[in-house]
Amino acid sequence: MYVSENLGVNERGHLTFGGLDTLALAKEYGTPLYLMDEDLIRKNCRALLDAFGKYYDGNANVSYASKALSCVAICKIMAEEGMHLDVVSGGELFTALRAGFPAERIHFHGNNKTEEELRFGLDSKIDCFVVDNLYELERLEAIAAEQDQQVRIYFRIKPGVDAHTHSFIRTGQIDSKFGLALENGEAEEAVARALQCRHLTLAGLHCHIGSQIFDMEPFAHAAQIMIAFLAQIRRQHGVTLGELNLGGGFGIRYLPEDDPVELDECIRLLTQAVKAACDAEGFPLPRLGIEPGRSIVGPAGITLYTVGAIKEIKGIRTYVAVDGGMADNPRYALYQSPYTLAIADRAGDPRDFKATVVGRCCESGDILQEHTMIQAPRPGDVLAVLATGAYNYSMSSNYNRIPRPAMVLVSQGRARVAVRRETYEDLLRNDCE
Amino acid sequence: MYVSENLGVNERGHLTFGGLDTLALAKEYGTPLYLMDEDLIRKNCRALLDAFGKYYDGNANVSYASKALSCVAICKIMAEEGMHLDVVSGGELFTALRAGFPAERIHFHGNNKTEEELRFGLDSKIDCFVVDNLYELERLEAIAAEQDQQVRIYFRIKPGVDAHTHSFIRTGQIDSKFGLALENGEAEEAVARALQCRHLTLAGLHCHIGSQIFDMEPFAHAAQIMIAFLAQIRRQHGVTLGELNLGGGFGIRYLPEDDPVELDECIRLLTQAVKAACDAEGFPLPRLGIEPGRSIVGPAGITLYTVGAIKEIKGIRTYVAVDGGMADNPRYALYQSPYTLAIADRAGDPRDFKATVVGRCCESGDILQEHTMIQAPRPGDVLAVLATGAYNYSMSSNYNRIPRPAMVLVSQGRARVAVRRETYEDLLRNDCE
Repeated sequence: MYVSENLGVNERGHLTFGGLDTLALAKEYGTPLYLMDEDLIRKNCRALLDAFGKYYDGNANVSYASKALSCVAICKIMAEEGMHLDVVSGGELFTALRAGFPAERIHFHGNNKTEEELRFGLDSKIDCFVVDNLYELERLEAIAAEQDQQVRIYFRIKPGVDAHTHSFIRTGQIDSKFGLALENGEAEEAVARALQCRHLTLAGLHCHIGSQIFDMEPFAHAAQIMIAFLAQIRRQHGVTLGELNLGGGFGIRYLPEDDPVELDECIRLLTQAVKAACDAEGFPLPRLGIEPGRSIVGPAGITLYTVGAIKEIKGIRTYVAVDGGMADNPRYALYQSPYTLAIADRAGDPRDFKATVVGRCCESGDILQEHTMIQAPRPGDVLAVLATGAYNYSMSSNYNRIPRPAMVLVSQGRARVAVRRETYEDLLRNDCE
Repeated sequence: MYVSENLGVNERGHLTFGGLDTLALAKEYGTPLYLMDEDLIRKNCRALLDAFGKYYDGNANVSYASKALSCVAICKIMAEEGMHLDVVSGGELFTALRAGFPAERIHFHGNNKTEEELRFGLDSKIDCFVVDNLYELERLEAIAAEQDQQVRIYFRIKPGVDAHTHSFIRTGQIDSKFGLALENGEAEEAVARALQCRHLTLAGLHCHIGSQIFDMEPFAHAAQIMIAFLAQIRRQHGVTLGELNLGGGFGIRYLPEDDPVELDECIRLLTQAVKAACDAEGFPLPRLGIEPGRSIVGPAGITLYTVGAIKEIKGIRTYVAVDGGMADNPRYALYQSPYTLAIADRAGDPRDFKATVVGRCCESGDILQEHTMIQAPRPGDVLAVLATGAYNYSMSSNYNRIPRPAMVLVSQGRARVAVRRETYEDLLRNDCE
């Protein structure tokens, strides 16, 4: 039942998460509460690594895109699983290093890295920078020269592939703030210039076509285009770039009817496309990289809330208010993102009550889901929003000066706090009197 | 020029804010940087208080809606100006009390106040609670009874007025999560029940019709409806409620062509409508309340960024990336909110360059403004987004683990830090190892 394999219903009719009673967890840790399933996270990492072993002789880096959910505990898990890490800011890099994540397995993304971040990455001896634009190339070369360092780089390329997803999470087409376009010769020029940079080593190329994608065809298409470009670079410059990162974007199940491709199958299809393209171009198989974020942690998280006021407006709708909302999960407010919700107290009952579940912020847009089916709610019930592991904690705010929820990690039937609940004092920590 | 009276251009062609050179401020405090003009905030407070003095014998509370921008320094200014305060959470109440704001001038809003918040408000002896729904009424009566306290309350009423604004910031109509509807008898029932509550004193009514409203007609209409309801309560129950809060929502100038009503004129028209309605109903003039937030602090703030990568995509658009974005100002991502932008280095030059100004987050929706006219930008320039005093810092997140900017308060030609810039260490403060 429900959208993730680690959800269930126990003999008391309560929703379980990783085998634990969610009502007991809500009682112990309070609500709102982020719950993450460490075992499912590890399982997802292994599924990807194993698939590359099976289909590509393991000649691949699987990088966790830490923007999906970055905190010390999660970075530690990724380190232990042998993952690589994708960071997009100094803050994510700092978090990873604090977790003891090996710098040589980290690469640094971002369309507008600051001077401080370029230096921080260099000083930390990360594996490489994914250079987004020519301005960054210039600055990185200058800093590397000043420090007399040799720095590995990739270029972020726009392959011109449209991943048929929400316009705000579509990034592979030419009209994007990310990367260098192939269509207009921008990417070609960048490669030529990088090969002239004495302190930069162009190690490979990167592309990312979008997010929450259910169809592997656009990935295969992007792989073809990127490998054709690798072959073109070899022809033009006599240089064989040996690394190719195809980004992330594998979709997950938010609604029961969503039908994402299994992780193993994602990798089978992706590597098949890469092999076919290399075969067609007569190009040696590159070391592959991918950057899944949502598909690793998204299904491994849920959020628990307590139901408060229930407001039936006859003939219009029933508002069910909970003790969190857009401050801990802004995705509906931002993107009208779909989620599956359930009353944890009676999780086995039919979801036959149509509700608009809203938060407690003083903002009309503070909605978790409109016109969604849940079990008939009562004040004091625990309401669960499912598949919130990605882009919830990471996008959370203190709007209305609401402290951020705690995050609890569940593993092997045990729970522990990964991130403590914010206090009112935390909110004032940087205020000057 | 520009959208707020405190902006100018100095002899070096730099944008000035409260008379200070913004480039010097950017250099001293770094970017991104929130700047707030204390003098303009005080001036706006006084304009409202003076107007009530002129048009209504001062028989009014002007409450600052602290959700627009809550921090200790701002609450202190409001306390000094004799303002009342509208808080919507325990966090906002905590902030106000820390600033020494008198509890007897605070009222507590919210569609789903938690048990802890109701107790916190009671213990703090705030002026009153604006009760949103019957469930809250019950709980508040129970807690007040348990503590043997007498508590002043208002009801939040939906007057059924449509303020012709963005659907997410329209709150007066029946299909809203806030308040009790008049149309379906909900409000009437609530009043009857409140009059039975032994520990609650129904002191008045409240309504709020929306945000960023440029037309006073809907306010006048709401005032009529509310006063008719006050008269109805008097007829039905023989009780004359002596207080009426008409909420906030006065629009500000985000774009040069915006034409908001001056604050003095807002109050003149509002009090005129109230007097006319009271006259028509034969109802005594109530003590009035309003809750402006945006109109006090919005025009008094700007945000400074540093320009990084500039990406021209011929025939499509030019992306100008800055070192902040949706993490410090999510309003474009949420609501496609319009802003006026300028290159602070050459603020006197014509704004003849069409740009899409984007942030540094790894998110396609991370846009500050699309297709906006600015001075031709260069990397390293300081870019100012104007009229960001409301709903920027208060809605900010740490997405991509980007530390929040500092906030600097400018007054009488001097600058001081009101909120310190977050550090990487701050981001990890609640992480468990």
